[in-house]
Formats: sequence, C-alpha cells, structure tokens
Amino acid sequence: MEQSTSHQTILTNGLILTHPGLSQPEPHGVTIISGNRLEQVNLPKDQAPGAAGEVVDCSNCLIMPGLVNAHTHAAMSILRGVADDLPLDRWLNQYIFPSESRHVARDFVRLGTTLSAVEMALSGVTTFADGYFFMEQAAEATLEVGLRAVIAQGILDVPTPDAATPASWRGRAEEFLSSCSRDSLITPALFCHSPYLCSPETFRAAKELAAKHDALLFSHVAETSWEVAQIQRSYGARPVEHLEQNGILGQDFVAVHCVHLSGREKDVLSNSRTGVVHCPESNMKLASGTAPVMDLLSRDVRVALGTDGPASNNNLDLFEEMRSASFLAKLANNDPEALSACTVIQMATGHGAAVLRMNDRIGSLEAGNLADLILIDLDRPHLTPAYDVVSHLTYSARGSDVRDVMVNGKFVVRQGKVTTVDEEELKSKVREMARKIAVDLNIRTHGVCTTDV
Amino acid sequence: MEQSTSHQTILTNGLILTHPGLSQPEPHGVTIISGNRLEQVNLPKDQAPGAAGEVVDCSNCLIMPGLVNAHTHAAMSILRGVADDLPLDRWLNQYIFPSESRHVARDFVRLGTTLSAVEMALSGVTTFADGYFFMEQAAEATLEVGLRAVIAQGILDVPTPDAATPASWRGRAEEFLSSCSRDSLITPALFCHSPYLCSPETFRAAKELAAKHDALLFSHVAETSWEVAQIQRSYGARPVEHLEQNGILGQDFVAVHCVHLSGREKDVLSNSRTGVVHCPESNMKLASGTAPVMDLLSRDVRVALGTDGPASNNNLDLFEEMRSASFLAKLANNDPEALSACTVIQMATGHGAAVLRMNDRIGSLEAGNLADLILIDLDRPHLTPAYDVVSHLTYSARGSDVRDVMVNGKFVVRQGKVTTVDEEELKSKVREMARKIAVDLNIRTHGVCTTDV
Repeated sequence: MEQSTSHQTILTNGLILTHPGLSQPEPHGVTIISGNRLEQVNLPKDQAPGAAGEVVDCSNCLIMPGLVNAHTHAAMSILRGVADDLPLDRWLNQYIFPSESRHVARDFVRLGTTLSAVEMALSGVTTFADGYFFMEQAAEATLEVGLRAVIAQGILDVPTPDAATPASWRGRAEEFLSSCSRDSLITPALFCHSPYLCSPETFRAAKELAAKHDALLFSHVAETSWEVAQIQRSYGARPVEHLEQNGILGQDFVAVHCVHLSGREKDVLSNSRTGVVHCPESNMKLASGTAPVMDLLSRDVRVALGTDGPASNNNLDLFEEMRSASFLAKLANNDPEALSACTVIQMATGHGAAVLRMNDRIGSLEAGNLADLILIDLDRPHLTPAYDVVSHLTYSARGSDVRDVMVNGKFVVRQGKVTTVDEEELKSKVREMARKIAVDLNIRTHGVCTTDV
Repeated sequence: MEQSTSHQTILTNGLILTHPGLSQPEPHGVTIISGNRLEQVNLPKDQAPGAAGEVVDCSNCLIMPGLVNAHTHAAMSILRGVADDLPLDRWLNQYIFPSESRHVARDFVRLGTTLSAVEMALSGVTTFADGYFFMEQAAEATLEVGLRAVIAQGILDVPTPDAATPASWRGRAEEFLSSCSRDSLITPALFCHSPYLCSPETFRAAKELAAKHDALLFSHVAETSWEVAQIQRSYGARPVEHLEQNGILGQDFVAVHCVHLSGREKDVLSNSRTGVVHCPESNMKLASGTAPVMDLLSRDVRVALGTDGPASNNNLDLFEEMRSASFLAKLANNDPEALSACTVIQMATGHGAAVLRMNDRIGSLEAGNLADLILIDLDRPHLTPAYDVVSHLTYSARGSDVRDVMVNGKFVVRQGKVTTVDEEELKSKVREMARKIAVDLNIRTHGVCTTDV
C-alpha cells in the first residue's frame, strides 16, 4: 500500500458527489490521484489521459469527500462503556476522573487513539479534531493509521495526566506545539477544557500561545445549563459573552457544543467568525440540551459535526451523527424541512473543513485539493432503491457502508478492512489494558471469547 | 439450509443474554435447538448431551433473543427516499399518495416486503408487525425470507389500493383474515389507519371482526398535534379517549406512536392494558413530537419499539432505533439515567413480544420457546473494549454487527448474508420497479452502476 508522491491512482465508474452542497451526485468517469493530490476529477472516460497506476473500479459506489469529525477525545475509546446511564457527576467522579488520573499515560493515549482512528477510518472519517493529553502520542497514532487530524493538547486549571500542577500547563503546551511535527496530516492545536475549568487568564495565555504558533484554540462552550449558571455567577456574563470579553473568539477559535446560547451570543459567534462544532448524540445522551443549529446556520455560522469522545456517544460513526443532527433539528424546530440531508452533509464535510481552517485543501473533490475521499457501497438492501443518494447518505446509510477510504492519496481502508495497522493485534492490546482498568475500578469486563470473560 | 422439524443445531461458546432484563450476559456453554424450539439453553459444556446436528461456534459473539420491530409498513421500501425534507402534506399529497394509488399492487407489496424482510433479517429483527395492503403478498414475502410477522391488513374510510370503495374494506378484511395462512410464522391482524381516517363505526366493526378471528387490531394513535386537534373537533375527545369511548382499547389493541397524550390518557392506556409502539426516529424525522415513554413505562404500559415504514425513517435498523429511543428520552426528561440500555433492550425484545401477544413463545431464550435468536459479532473496533455488553448493544452497535440470525430454528442469515433469498436478483427487481415509479413521478433515480443512471 505504500505510495511514493508520484504514485497515481485512477478511480473509474460509479457516482461522484464532488461538492457536498450538490443535491445530486453525477455519473463518474475517471478521477486521477497523483501523489497526495487530486489531479483530475471526473473526466469523461474518453478524455482521460493514459495514466499509469492502480485502477480502482468504483462501480456500485458513490465517491464523495471524506467526512470530518470536528470534535472527539479519541483516546477515551479505552473507557468506552465503562459507565453509562449515570448522572454526569457520578459518571465523572466515580468512573471517568479516577480512571483517567490512574491510567491515562502515553501508552493509553497511543493505543486508544489508534483504536479510534481505525474505527473512524472504517466509517469514512478522513479528518478529525482531537483534544486530550499526551498529544504527541495521539499524533503518532494518527500517522500510523494514516488519517488527517488537528491534534489539540488539553489545558485545565487542575492537575492533568500530563501536567502535574495547574501552573505547569503552559510549559507542557509550549513543549507540545514546538515538538509536535506539523505536516500534511498533523496540525497541532490547543484545547482549553471549558470556561469553568480554565480561568480567563488561562484562556488569554492559551490564545496568545496558539497565535504565536498559528494554531487553533478549542474549548467546550455552553454545553450545559449548569455551566451557564456557573459562569454567570463567576463572571457576570454567559459563557460566549465571557469569552468575547476576554478576546478569545474569532476564526482561530472553535467553540464545541454551544447548546445554551442567548440571541446575542448567536450574533457574537457569527460576527466573530468563530467556528462551532455540534455534537448532537453526546448532547442527547448526557441530557445537555439541544443546540440551536438552525439559528446559527441562518446567521452564517460555520457549524461542523462532531461525535464527541467514544466514552460519551458511544461510537464514532459520523453517519449516525448526521442522521441524529437532522432528526433533532426537525424535532426541535417542529419542522420536517429543517436541516436537510444536503445541509447536514455540508456540515460533515465542508463546514468541518472550514472550522478546522482546511477548506482550501479538503472538504470537496476539486483538482488540486488533497486526495481525501471515501467510497460508499450503494449496493446494499437498506440503500435500495436509490431515488436520492444524498437522502440515503443522511437517512439510510451507516458507517459500515463505507467500502474504501483514501487519505492524502493513500488508501487506509480497502473493501471494509483497514490496511495500515494490524486490527487483531490492536484489539488484543486494548483488551489487555481494559482488563487492568476493570480490575482497578472493580467492574466486570467482557472479553469476546468465553476464555476471556 | 432446509431443516426438518427434528433437525438439531448446537450453539457453543461466546456469551449469552438469555433474558433482556439482565444487566449482564453470561458465558455461554451449549444451547441446543431442536426443530423450531430451544430444547436446552446454556448448559455447562460437560453436561451437554451428545446431540447430532450442526455445531455453530459462537466465539466472539453474543447470543441474544431476536429483535421485534413492532411497527412498520414493509412494502414501502420501494418508496424509500422518494421524497424527504418535506412538510407532511406535500410529502403525502405530491409523492406518497400518488405513488401508492398508481403503483401499489400485489407485485409491489410482494417485492417491497421481501426487500424489507431481508433488510430486517440482516440487522437482527426476527419478528415484525406490518400494516399495509394486499397483505397475503406480505405474508408470502415474509415466509420466503423466513421471518416471523404479524401481518395486518390496512383499513381506511377512503379508497385504498385493495379496496376500491370505502364500503368494501370489510369484505377485504374478512377475506384476508379467512384466507391468510396462520402458522408458526404468520399471524394475521387488522390495521385501522387512524382515528382521523377511520370513523368510530369502522373502528368498532374492525374490532368486532378482529375479535371473531382472535386477531390483534392496530392503529396509529395521537401521532401529531394536528390529529389531536382534529379528533377533539370531530368528537369532543382526545384520540385515546375517543378510542376508549368506542370500546377499542385493550390487550388486543396496539396503539402506534402515542406521542401526544394527556395524563389521563396515559392512565387509560395502562388500565386497559393496551400495547403501545414507540417509533422515535419517525417521530423526529417528521417532527411529530416526543412520546412520553418514561411516563408510560412507569405506569407499567408495555412499550415496544418500531421503525415505522422505510419511507419515513429511512431504514429498518432497530439498533439505531434503540439508541435514538434512549437518547431522546434522556434529552426530553433532562435525565441521563432515563431509558437505560437494559430497558431499551427489553422494549426491543420482551415488550415487543408482549405487545404482539407472543411473549409465551419469543422474546427470551428459555427452553421450550421458539428458537428466534441472533448472534452479535463483538469482535469489532467500535465494540472494543467490552466492559458492558448491554451498554454496547444500545449505545455502540449497529445492525451490521449481526452475524447470524435464526428464526423458528432455521438460520436466515449466516455470516452477514441472507440465506433464504437471492439478494442480487431481489435488488435488481426492486430497481426495475423503482425506475418505473421515478419516470411516472418525473423524478430522477440513481441506479448503482453508471450504466444504470
């Protein structure tokens, strides 16, 4: 599977959705990938130059831009299902925080991020934005699997797994931004946890540090009504207003969740060109509320889609997230026309790319763009018949309908199998680590073989 | 794959969830299926009698009761995606009703039901409740695929595809109940569309006819606020009250949707032991509202899960429906503990069986029960690690994780492939019919090959 930069791949046949805004795909002729770029997109077959390279028959498939999962905590796959159906405080204090403080280390992040990257690749995600700790390991894992990612080092005003004292976050973040490789696949960034776990001083210092390295700054913002009340109590302003007052908003800031917003805050997000990430399934599962997605889109806010971490979703299937986003918007707005299939696909591709400041390279299939694309196998009973492929992508498809995935010109999934890592070895290592965590937390774990139980 | 009634199948290894109410599966030893019954369930390996028959290794899998999809209109798969993101009146009047009146005939129902039964089998549904027209054909399709179903003949006070005049519904229903084979797999029933499309006289006559044949009567009830207002205008009572006043409620009645209920109506459903079917994704997609599931469950109402028809969902994946039911309940109740994984699995198995009056035969894995069971392949990245398999079933799994499906002692799916019908031939026939409908409705259709477009 290794390809030199001059390696060519030729895709033929099938259907192609070059731009997510289109309501219908077109019949596909020939697309040529050269190195990590799209050289020619959807040429008529008789006009295609004779190109040397691997020819991939896309019959029965839709070729479309790879999906962008604009928010997750990938390493937390190791804690997936460790505790569910619990109120947030018990979930955090009895399970997640103890597990994290005792088990999150370099190997945890390396392994968990690899597992999540494999899961995302298999379900059509080509780019993701990650926020956690020991992020050099997250970058390594991402490169091993071959995905594209914005890798954001977590910052909190409390001790974290990789910053033993609150005062040490700045050194840790500086170290990360300086040492993490920046290449075509990896873009380093910073992630302030939230306005309630990061002081205004921390936010301002992180913003300055990010600017110095031309990096994005992320934060969870206005996720719960508890948070809004807390920030109002502490600072006399709602969360978005509070960040505005501290000069944090802007095109280089990504506000994740944005569930509880005043009308003025929606305007502020729009005017400041702040990127927003909507995580509907996490917001539903944790009973956080319904983000006002339609209000934001109508104000020209770029709203991307995210799965949130696999411990609070509990999977990384962006097709499912697209469907949930659309269904939730229709329900919340009492309008079956709200958040159409077409719009939700834009959120999962082009808007995601824009929020991550990558829309000059990814998010649509145009000659010159980076070659991040996926093939959806349309020849499935639940996608038959196919009056409207765009509708199917949102309302009928699943992550498991993804056949092939190309990132940066290289296939990382072929025929539904990941090609870059040994999946069996990976799962085996994850189970071994999970067994130790389960013993420590005094909970049962199920292996997948009777001898494992 | 044909089996005589004395044929034995022996399942070994893996994990087993014998009863959906259990919070944890057990290690699985040996389960023996004889004919269409579970003869022995989860014997310790050293106590298993020497049985002659096919041995199926279930290592890496969870064995659990088959899922019950308690509400669909299976034949409508032919119209899947024909029109989405539209207000209900345009969807119905411009697309669905014209398509139905011109194309719904015996071959449409036979083909569409076969396609849906295949889709349901592949995603772990072993029993479904169907309501549509030409239901003899639906029964034939179900038998061909090898699923179990309650097949309910549709009744409306307007002309339907198989009752040219409103007056002729009774003859049609009588004909169906008399002629449709009743066997272990097929249970005939009646389906009055709704209180707004069936008069009180029609409901009462249908109830009487159903009782005469010991058949269930279904209806859509209180799906939209429009319906509630309409019924109040017409009859001075809300929909459930209206049906109560006409003597329709009871254990032999199934009320589908029940989105808009007063407190008294919830009590009435409980006191009358009426079965309820919750279809969260359809209710969200059509912006109908949020059914008060927690209120009903707390009143001991049996609430089953349904996908609704594939034209308003747009798939038949009950795993997705389980997840959406739980997420929606958590959001609506502002409570992350609402509708736990365990409860939602009960809804999708045991409650479904109870609402369909089959819980003496299916819905749990007990010796003597009919052998309806599914094997979930747990050896997937998105199901790894497995601290809590029950949580995974609701929050992480997809229909495509189903490996094998047994209905009535016979495998209808093995290794993710349907064994009873030729899937390629089926899809080809469906596409041919869809192309004709698309031409007639003047809409585009996408085949799956470029030559098809």
